[in-house]
Amino acid sequence: MSYIPEPIAGLIEQLKKLPGVGSRTAERYAFDMIEWEKEELLGFASMIQEVKTKLSHCTHCGALVSLKNCPYCTKEREASGTICVVQSAKDLITFEQTGEYVGVYHVLGGLLSPFNGIGPDSLNLSPLFHKIKNGTYNEVIIALDSTVEGDATALYLKEVLKKYSIQCSRLAFGLPMGSPIAYVDQGTLAKAFLARSQYN
Amino acid sequence: MSYIPEPIAGLIEQLKKLPGVGSRTAERYAFDMIEWEKEELLGFASMIQEVKTKLSHCTHCGALVSLKNCPYCTKEREASGTICVVQSAKDLITFEQTGEYVGVYHVLGGLLSPFNGIGPDSLNLSPLFHKIKNGTYNEVIIALDSTVEGDATALYLKEVLKKYSIQCSRLAFGLPMGSPIAYVDQGTLAKAFLARSQYN
Repeated sequence: MSYIPEPIAGLIEQLKKLPGVGSRTAERYAFDMIEWEKEELLGFASMIQEVKTKLSHCTHCGALVSLKNCPYCTKEREASGTICVVQSAKDLITFEQTGEYVGVYHVLGGLLSPFNGIGPDSLNLSPLFHKIKNGTYNEVIIALDSTVEGDATALYLKEVLKKYSIQCSRLAFGLPMGSPIAYVDQGTLAKAFLARSQYN
Repeated sequence: MSYIPEPIAGLIEQLKKLPGVGSRTAERYAFDMIEWEKEELLGFASMIQEVKTKLSHCTHCGALVSLKNCPYCTKEREASGTICVVQSAKDLITFEQTGEYVGVYHVLGGLLSPFNGIGPDSLNLSPLFHKIKNGTYNEVIIALDSTVEGDATALYLKEVLKKYSIQCSRLAFGLPMGSPIAYVDQGTLAKAFLARSQYN
């Protein structure tokens, strides 16, 4: 027999779908939730029901937006002349939170991964080329993961962008902030050495 | 301005109410969830809506049950003559999962904690005494946390149960299974020494 009453067991199964949540964590969440007020549970449930219907992807840049006008595809941002190529709408938000970037974005929707059957055709590339061809941009910033797939995609982009007269840059590699050397891997240290800058 | 679209921000706020979930984890969950199929989201939401209405506490033992008849308050379990006193309905399920116990349970609904204003009157005690007085039980197993509050509650129970002619026991203290001595705290080691058993 199962020891957990059906309504809780069902909730646990749902919670286990969340990334990185196993049985123990899901149980902890579920037993906490049954102590919540009924209104709180209903509020949580309605947020989940609505999240998808209230969101859409900007047809220009691919950002997740809840408004009719994409807040990233503005005249002012276009005037900066830069396009930042990111993997996902979530990465876009992460960059936006740094407050360092003022140009427009382009969401690829993935990274090249031939082993998993993801080639250039699977990525949201043609709107990017179209934008570059018809816009007045002077720089494409490749802001992709520093992983095998990210590197491959960056390399591919660099090659295909050669036929457009546009500058191409990639995010810097180096030490993460607040990190003791002892905890940094060899590859990162090597990159940090190579990319060292004048300091005086 | 906020960088996260309102529907996602609202969902993140809800997810942050889960125990141990901060902003980063909640964001991770929310961005994963917006990739789910709409049916999955609706299923999750309806589980949350229903969990509270489909559950009730057994009026006898305090267990969380979804059926009309509590699966723990059976004639067979009563016949074993033991009552296991636990803190919460969740603890009850944890003990049940060990498969080691065959008697009835009693859920206290908390632990004594004078600092937080939780005295004996706040606990579900009188049904326990009533059960002992009118039943044919011969042992009360105190299965509470090995914390200050758990110890205080166990001590209190031991004292008040003296007026009933019933045996009182408490869970054993000692090394947790699969644990190297080096990782075990001094208090636990001292308890394990004192409670050592014949081994031959």
